[in-house]
Amino acid sequence: MTRRRKIYEGKAKILYEGPEPGTLVQHFKDDATAFNNKKHDLIEGKGVLNNRISEYVFTRLGEIGIPTHFLKRVNMREQLVKEVEIIPIEVMIRNVAAGSLAKRLGIEEGTPLPRSIIEFAYKSDELDDPLVTEEHITAFAWATPQEIDDMMAMSLRINDFLSGLFLGIGIKLIDFKIEFGRHFEGEMMRVILADEISPDSCRLWDTATNEKLDKDRFRRDLGGLMDAYQEVARRLGILMENEDQTPRTGPVLVK
Amino acid sequence: MTRRRKIYEGKAKILYEGPEPGTLVQHFKDDATAFNNKKHDLIEGKGVLNNRISEYVFTRLGEIGIPTHFLKRVNMREQLVKEVEIIPIEVMIRNVAAGSLAKRLGIEEGTPLPRSIIEFAYKSDELDDPLVTEEHITAFAWATPQEIDDMMAMSLRINDFLSGLFLGIGIKLIDFKIEFGRHFEGEMMRVILADEISPDSCRLWDTATNEKLDKDRFRRDLGGLMDAYQEVARRLGILMENEDQTPRTGPVLVK
Repeated sequence: MTRRRKIYEGKAKILYEGPEPGTLVQHFKDDATAFNNKKHDLIEGKGVLNNRISEYVFTRLGEIGIPTHFLKRVNMREQLVKEVEIIPIEVMIRNVAAGSLAKRLGIEEGTPLPRSIIEFAYKSDELDDPLVTEEHITAFAWATPQEIDDMMAMSLRINDFLSGLFLGIGIKLIDFKIEFGRHFEGEMMRVILADEISPDSCRLWDTATNEKLDKDRFRRDLGGLMDAYQEVARRLGILMENEDQTPRTGPVLVK
Repeated sequence: MTRRRKIYEGKAKILYEGPEPGTLVQHFKDDATAFNNKKHDLIEGKGVLNNRISEYVFTRLGEIGIPTHFLKRVNMREQLVKEVEIIPIEVMIRNVAAGSLAKRLGIEEGTPLPRSIIEFAYKSDELDDPLVTEEHITAFAWATPQEIDDMMAMSLRINDFLSGLFLGIGIKLIDFKIEFGRHFEGEMMRVILADEISPDSCRLWDTATNEKLDKDRFRRDLGGLMDAYQEVARRLGILMENEDQTPRTGPVLVK
């Protein structure tokens, strides 16, 4: 591998300069972090799984007309993406109360919400990604009202599609976090989906057992993170390159 | 005083059944509380001052066409108000970064905001009045989109008017908190301003010195709370019934 210029290193991914102008290489690390990096571990193979799962999800979203930064997967840990200017807002879409919303509003985890709720957090490790509203976002010009509208409209479509996709494989999409970026095509700028969608950024509960198949296994010391991520990949029909290709006869049990 | 039925007792006020159906008596206590009652003290005379200041402000707001619950002041500590169904949302209007916004978004206190920002908090002592967005408010039916629109429109008018009023007496309106209620007039329901507006619920800084003339003197152990509140009342031209009526020759210094 030739020496590449590192553009940005986050907690779970690295962005390198891509082979063509306007492209980047998104590299998935094995680092698992929670509580804004206060908890950290290495989970061997997590990056490989998230690369594959995110590739799958972004490809399917592209097929239904959601513009994304994804171009192609280039190897086990890396994908080629369009270079964007990241909007410094995490968009959270919640279908069932869990995590910070359950705690903040005093709602028992697992309670279905009256309707899907979109939340915004300002991307800032220093400030622990504080919850913000459209008021803050537009006042500080983190995004324009039009960009917020675009993000919300895409978020709702993505939620509908992914809720259906996961339901089809016996998984409830409890909530998920996505990020958007500004992509410039000549004079044209448009907001497109960026970052990743994986069990690192979604809450995924088994429909039958409510078993957690996501990063909460790490956050809450439940163990079996890799088993859970592999189970999600397996149900999505993703075959790993280095995986035993023998057909499975039953569900893989997650401890 | 005849025995009255207590409808509700809050941290700084009591509501009693009023003399006519559809009315309540709002009684201002001397209790000063902060950090959701973790800090508590009695400041003799504070209730009397807040009753007068809130009477003054609500009367002026009524004159510019803001519908309010205020009917009349009935004695030193009490005012007659319309009975409303309180909307369980605190509306905060911020012109300059201070308090929780400064901390949450990492902005130095005293920094003017790019524009006025409206924030909502869900009224819950148990949950420490968490910040919420229109998403949460409408999803949980705490208020309808129309009610939110009404509250926001009134909040901006109130902010404009009070910013001017205070500026005229050498005070910067940094931020303030208001509450609204549903008032039923026969079949008609409308959202009206309720609760109080006083140095308990506003941040008021002297224009020349930035000296705090509000409850932050209590929250931050600066002392001189009563001097500050009296200074606000004095500048508003409110003469206290039990006050020395000798004309003052200069500003009262707040320590």
